[in-house]
Amino acid sequence: MSRKAKPIRSELGWSTADKIVVLGKDLPGEILGKVNLGDMAFLELTRKLPSKNESVLFNAMVVTLVEHGITPSALVARLTYLGAPEALQAAVAAGLCGLGSVFVGSTEHVAKLLTESISSGKDAKKVVTENKRIPGLGHPIHKPIDPRTVRLFEIARETGFYGKYCKLMEEIGKEKNLVVNATGAIGALACELGLDWRAVRGLGVMARAVGLVGHILEESKQPMAEEVWHRIEEEASAHLKPKK
Amino acid sequence: MSRKAKPIRSELGWSTADKIVVLGKDLPGEILGKVNLGDMAFLELTRKLPSKNESVLFNAMVVTLVEHGITPSALVARLTYLGAPEALQAAVAAGLCGLGSVFVGSTEHVAKLLTESISSGKDAKKVVTENKRIPGLGHPIHKPIDPRTVRLFEIARETGFYGKYCKLMEEIGKEKNLVVNATGAIGALACELGLDWRAVRGLGVMARAVGLVGHILEESKQPMAEEVWHRIEEEASAHLKPKK
Amino acid sequence: MSRKAKPIRSELGWSTADKIVVLGKDLPGEILGKVNLGDMAFLELTRKLPSKNESVLFNAMVVTLVEHGITPSALVARLTYLGAPEALQAAVAAGLCGLGSVFVGSTEHVAKLLTESISSGKDAKKVVTENKRIPGLGHPIHKPIDPRTVRLFEIARETGFYGKYCKLMEEIGKEKNLVVNATGAIGALACELGLDWRAVRGLGVMARAVGLVGHILEESKQPMAEEVWHRIEEEASAHLKPKK
Amino acid sequence: MSRKAKPIRSELGWSTADKIVVLGKDLPGEILGKVNLGDMAFLELTRKLPSKNESVLFNAMVVTLVEHGITPSALVARLTYLGAPEALQAAVAAGLCGLGSVFVGSTEHVAKLLTESISSGKDAKKVVTENKRIPGLGHPIHKPIDPRTVRLFEIARETGFYGKYCKLMEEIGKEKNLVVNATGAIGALACELGLDWRAVRGLGVMARAVGLVGHILEESKQPMAEEVWHRIEEEASAHLKPKK
Repeated sequence: MSRKAKPIRSELGWSTADKIVVLGKDLPGEILGKVNLGDMAFLELTRKLPSKNESVLFNAMVVTLVEHGITPSALVARLTYLGAPEALQAAVAAGLCGLGSVFVGSTEHVAKLLTESISSGKDAKKVVTENKRIPGLGHPIHKPIDPRTVRLFEIARETGFYGKYCKLMEEIGKEKNLVVNATGAIGALACELGLDWRAVRGLGVMARAVGLVGHILEESKQPMAEEVWHRIEEEASAHLKPKK
Repeated sequence: MSRKAKPIRSELGWSTADKIVVLGKDLPGEILGKVNLGDMAFLELTRKLPSKNESVLFNAMVVTLVEHGITPSALVARLTYLGAPEALQAAVAAGLCGLGSVFVGSTEHVAKLLTESISSGKDAKKVVTENKRIPGLGHPIHKPIDPRTVRLFEIARETGFYGKYCKLMEEIGKEKNLVVNATGAIGALACELGLDWRAVRGLGVMARAVGLVGHILEESKQPMAEEVWHRIEEEASAHLKPKK
Repeated sequence: MSRKAKPIRSELGWSTADKIVVLGKDLPGEILGKVNLGDMAFLELTRKLPSKNESVLFNAMVVTLVEHGITPSALVARLTYLGAPEALQAAVAAGLCGLGSVFVGSTEHVAKLLTESISSGKDAKKVVTENKRIPGLGHPIHKPIDPRTVRLFEIARETGFYGKYCKLMEEIGKEKNLVVNATGAIGALACELGLDWRAVRGLGVMARAVGLVGHILEESKQPMAEEVWHRIEEEASAHLKPKK
Repeated sequence: MSRKAKPIRSELGWSTADKIVVLGKDLPGEILGKVNLGDMAFLELTRKLPSKNESVLFNAMVVTLVEHGITPSALVARLTYLGAPEALQAAVAAGLCGLGSVFVGSTEHVAKLLTESISSGKDAKKVVTENKRIPGLGHPIHKPIDPRTVRLFEIARETGFYGKYCKLMEEIGKEKNLVVNATGAIGALACELGLDWRAVRGLGVMARAVGLVGHILEESKQPMAEEVWHRIEEEASAHLKPKK
């Protein structure tokens, strides 16, 4: 066999009989009781614990993405739970599968666009000219402003993280005469925090996993999935069925 | 059509042009900047924000479940990302699909067993007699103690939540002469916090979603999936291939 | 390191530069152009190609499970595609996640129950006495008979596979005064064909994967997911929103 | 509410107490016992049953994609099954999640490229000039020819479906001096059969669902997932652990 084996390595964690180390930190001694779930996510993405200000901003960003009410992804989790209540994990998984280019994925596109635009010195006008569609702008309901963006940029100012990426995003919004929506704000803030744009879609994915567990718990007590199914099935096939 | 339509209702969130309300709270005004991701999860599961002590304990519980190094679920996320790097959400989803009866699901079984045992007044001896297999006990590596359990029960004592469920779990462990592992401790603590046992598997699912994003980010920079695939493929089929 | 490495082996396939062998057969030479998709599935599950009669019966069984109109699983695939149209595979995957204990999983339970009952010599009366809930019986729409069962058992007779498992299933149905539904029939027929009951849920999973691709294709041309989402979202949160 | 409800319609199936109609055909009377699984898939994708020749070719195409031995997607299904053996459907789902741009997705890209090239009258030279990366070409193992492509194009000739799309694909391969691999051949053949390119990724998804059930069945009897996990975990973290 001519293929040469490559090394297999991960830096994320290891354990022995009496020790558990995660991202270089002793889990029981340095993390448990001291670090909240958002900070732990920050540690996963940056390999360091956040400062006080980073913690406040990062937690606000992910918390924004947890619960958006009855979204397609929440409906998916509920309809999946209807068929496989013994596999809650698969219902959450199914719900996550749709967080693609149309919904949560836009945060990643914002972060990528802003990262590239700033690093090549482009201003809002140039970005707008070069990109027919710009992610993170406009909202079907929240107009003329998205109240989450207002609050997130306020927190960014309070914590000292309102910088060039946020400014560029807001200027792009003005140029296009469109509201910077929450995914636009979060994409810009991810850049301010120095997050890798490849991890930015992950913010929405982890946050939504939290929210989907809430939906499944509600579904287990106050179900809607079966009713949704029957209503849609009846309407969708009514034109095919023989008239009585 | 004789089927009577049933109402469809969710209490989790709603929004209008200038207002976003999640679980009864104004998202920009009452949540963002004040609530960390773990507290938001607590809010999803209990419909109230945690007290300071509840926050410390609950965050410790979920943080424990975020990162366990190279688990089957981490391998699944990485191998999925290898084939579909454009769909990070699907790689996390695939990784979650295996959090079933063998791994993370045991937390739920612990919570259910303790809830039922306490409510019917059973002691450790009776629980052990009646149940051939008891979840949350034993660990292949962490013996004779699981350092996470020690720390979690310490935090429970510090925050005033070490109570009858924790005690019963520890007595069951002694009765069986097996260590109470982290899922055993977390199952007991979920009961102490009054969480519905049906939501307890969700703790591991949401926590692992956070960790899997970390694995995918590492895979994007320091990959192992392709090497894993080639090595296993070669070994698995070596006995079938013609000898040269 | 004290752990002893165990061998890793699979018998399913191998290839070299000019040869591709699947389940012991030369793929280009012995399979392509000769074997249909159902026969290939039979080969995967039994490691032999079906006889003419086995082929007819097995294909009828899986074909029965392909398309059931607007099911929860079809809705899940469509709602997932709405958010991630670039990841068709994830939409099918999400749709499969709900094929659990409530819907498709029952086929497996039937096969297991019949296998165990026949091997321990139990008759219908005894099976009914011992099992409070019997899978594969009853149908909300197809009463007093399920036309698929009638046809499947007819094909079983024509192909020489109507035997003791089918008979027992029909006797159990009579004993309970309930129709043997399609999953009941398919569970029994899987036993007649000698399939491992652990693979029986897989029949529905593979068949539904075929059907879900059809749903996604229809969704791409004649969408319903967005309308479903908006309608349900509006109704679910109407009681929370301020009256105008 | 100003939103106007849109109609919700599907043409795929309907049923009443004694009738089940799928894609316009009576399921028990016109399909069961007459139609194989591949033909049923053809019906889902084109809304008509295949002719004898279409059936032979289409079944050969999907059968080609069923079993590729230990692929990343097979490993994913096996590792998922290790954690959740009670949820076979979720293991198949997880395995499908990785059928994205790198592996199975290329069939879709081939079909799209050929469709657009033929409809705008481009020849191989022009296609090669305009596209830096062309899908469906090259193979790490099967060189200088892919034996599946040879056989599939042979079947296409036998059934009268070797036409302009196949020819263009082969000319592109010659132009680039690369083998037309199986996904290239199947993409071209999908065009010859008149399939919508948006459904072409679905061919691989449905076929692989069949193969993954086979992998899970093998895993249940001759497991490798646990060994894979332990080996990789040990190697990946060895550099972090304290030397003994």
